[in-house]
Amino acid sequence: MLNFTLNMPTRIHFGQGEVNKTGDIVASYAKKVLLVTGRSSTKKTGSLDKVTASLDKAGVSYVLFDRIEPNPRATTIDEAGRIAREENCELILALGGGSAMDAAKAIATVALSGRPIHEYIRGSKAGKWKELLPIKEALPIITIPTLAATGSEANSGAVITNWETKEKSGITGPALFPKAAILDPELTYTVPANYTADGAADMFTHLYEGYMTGDEHANVQDELTEGLMRNVLIYTKKALDEPENYEARSHLLWTSTLALIGIANAGRGGAFPVHAMEHTLSAHYDISHGRGLAIITPAYLEQIVLKDRPHRLARLARNVFRVTEDNDILAAKAGINALVDWYKEIGVYDTLQNVGIKREDLRLMADETIRVGGNGTDTLVGTHNITADEVLSIFEASYE
Amino acid sequence: MLNFTLNMPTRIHFGQGEVNKTGDIVASYAKKVLLVTGRSSTKKTGSLDKVTASLDKAGVSYVLFDRIEPNPRATTIDEAGRIAREENCELILALGGGSAMDAAKAIATVALSGRPIHEYIRGSKAGKWKELLPIKEALPIITIPTLAATGSEANSGAVITNWETKEKSGITGPALFPKAAILDPELTYTVPANYTADGAADMFTHLYEGYMTGDEHANVQDELTEGLMRNVLIYTKKALDEPENYEARSHLLWTSTLALIGIANAGRGGAFPVHAMEHTLSAHYDISHGRGLAIITPAYLEQIVLKDRPHRLARLARNVFRVTEDNDILAAKAGINALVDWYKEIGVYDTLQNVGIKREDLRLMADETIRVGGNGTDTLVGTHNITADEVLSIFEASYE
Repeated sequence: MLNFTLNMPTRIHFGQGEVNKTGDIVASYAKKVLLVTGRSSTKKTGSLDKVTASLDKAGVSYVLFDRIEPNPRATTIDEAGRIAREENCELILALGGGSAMDAAKAIATVALSGRPIHEYIRGSKAGKWKELLPIKEALPIITIPTLAATGSEANSGAVITNWETKEKSGITGPALFPKAAILDPELTYTVPANYTADGAADMFTHLYEGYMTGDEHANVQDELTEGLMRNVLIYTKKALDEPENYEARSHLLWTSTLALIGIANAGRGGAFPVHAMEHTLSAHYDISHGRGLAIITPAYLEQIVLKDRPHRLARLARNVFRVTEDNDILAAKAGINALVDWYKEIGVYDTLQNVGIKREDLRLMADETIRVGGNGTDTLVGTHNITADEVLSIFEASYE
Repeated sequence: MLNFTLNMPTRIHFGQGEVNKTGDIVASYAKKVLLVTGRSSTKKTGSLDKVTASLDKAGVSYVLFDRIEPNPRATTIDEAGRIAREENCELILALGGGSAMDAAKAIATVALSGRPIHEYIRGSKAGKWKELLPIKEALPIITIPTLAATGSEANSGAVITNWETKEKSGITGPALFPKAAILDPELTYTVPANYTADGAADMFTHLYEGYMTGDEHANVQDELTEGLMRNVLIYTKKALDEPENYEARSHLLWTSTLALIGIANAGRGGAFPVHAMEHTLSAHYDISHGRGLAIITPAYLEQIVLKDRPHRLARLARNVFRVTEDNDILAAKAGINALVDWYKEIGVYDTLQNVGIKREDLRLMADETIRVGGNGTDTLVGTHNITADEVLSIFEASYE
């Protein structure tokens, strides 16, 4: 196990009806908030009404900003930040999926400083990488996820898209930990099947990425990660079959948080190369992040992990997919097949072509993956240092 | 899964050599600290020298209070609190096992208020139970465990013994969360075999208690708990065979923290009846808490859990001890046998008689268990409400 520092300060309020405590929870931090959400789904499902009713009851006033798009954009962040400043909002309250929550973290940053979010992701290292400037302070943030997926609800990271430059960049900093996360599984009952499945693919990727690439002598983390992966398998199917099954929705929502709260990767130091590849795809094409991850994962596992660490893939196959094969190479291959079968079963198995990506853009996007995700080097960190040509090969294999 | 609130604010610094960062970590909170430890072991092993050298280097001054006894006593707490006040210490730094860390939490309480710890555990409900007064504030606390066992390093609980009344009482409150926990597995290399094993028995009990008694529809918690239990089994044996095996010591230490940081029991609402029974034993006889737990566990499982929830015991048997029996009752019995075998293998299998307890005290201690642990009722919460006669029966079965 590697040395690590772990910080999990977000207070979690989990369960049926917890959304109705929003006003009381927010009131201990702020009297006026910017309520950040997407254009339509929280209105259609009634989630927004529950939140505003609770705020009203607790005497918390709010300004609604309901224009967060999927893969939230820097220009939208800056606009919301300006409104939060003008309206003297004291806290950013996010209601929605990863987009609303990530946007809230960025808005909390620009609302306090009055500077565009671009300034926190500008800079240059080796002429390739946009170096992150430290985010030392932000308005307090509270999250209310309506989808089990990104885990953004209780960590300090966010991903923002600069649509002009086609770049998705991560921001992070202790100031971005939400003060509280309100996790009410009933809010996820109305999530459509495709989003439920895309979210599950995202969670599963959060779990396997560090497991594959990090320190291999971290059995306690391996065991926790495998347990969470098994939960994703079991309860995604159950939630797709019965969208209002509380057991399924509660397990998926809690797993999404645990998958990216830090305990799975602490002491392992794993990398996230598949995320880096997908971010280029969705920065250029605005596809669902979870769907993009599912599309390129089989080729990544076959081309990279099967060669470098078949024994890790074999362990995952045996402990998560219950593969009984003794030979590591065969078990690893069976594991990839089992994952593909699961992707098919939940409906996320797809191709880059099918989601509208043009073949002639693959080279550019492979190069962009290294430029944006390579931290100023010519490669992505993984089980080995992955080159642009290898990324292209994964994209090609995922194309049709 | 039940509704829950979860708070894990302690910042964790884990790994080889982390103890040498103590001074820098403490310096961000305080210039002068009360350094709380036991009488001898941290001096013999050199842990204390490492801590004081780091404090000196960072320019943090300290007052040493090296008189914490096993099962720390209220009178000692009050004395240490008085010294901390007189010396204007700004933080309580604990170095040691559960006794030092629990004592530090209580000292931080009395040091700030100037009131004896007894006032925080006084009061009366139904004439039986010492009602806890809320602990709203305390000096900041930092913990450095030298033993993998209690999990006190990163939670808000502590157990204090009133030796005059023979009562062990828990205290808790958000102010008691340590600001930081410095977990350096190398500090545990010198832990003697019997303490290593007692600590493992304590961890294992933290994990099985909630698992047996709490909500049964919390599979994500079950999976995490089983994974942690498997780690305890594997790495206790390894640490006993090779006391300076970093892998073994690091996994045990991290598991001790994870076992009681909240994630295993959140959403499950489990009870801790075996802990309540053991607290009476060690309040009267000053035996090791972990040893006491191991002694009474087999009878508890046979007399209570085997009747009420054989299927839970069967699941533990299958998933933790790899029992392959299909029938739940038989699997449950095999699980108890496997646990007893493990207790024997690591050297914690024992009897109440053998640790010096007098048979004629069993009735009194069974009654005391209910009086102190029953929260003002006639029973302990468990898989059913456990009576004093049932506690006596468990003690009798554990006697010789």
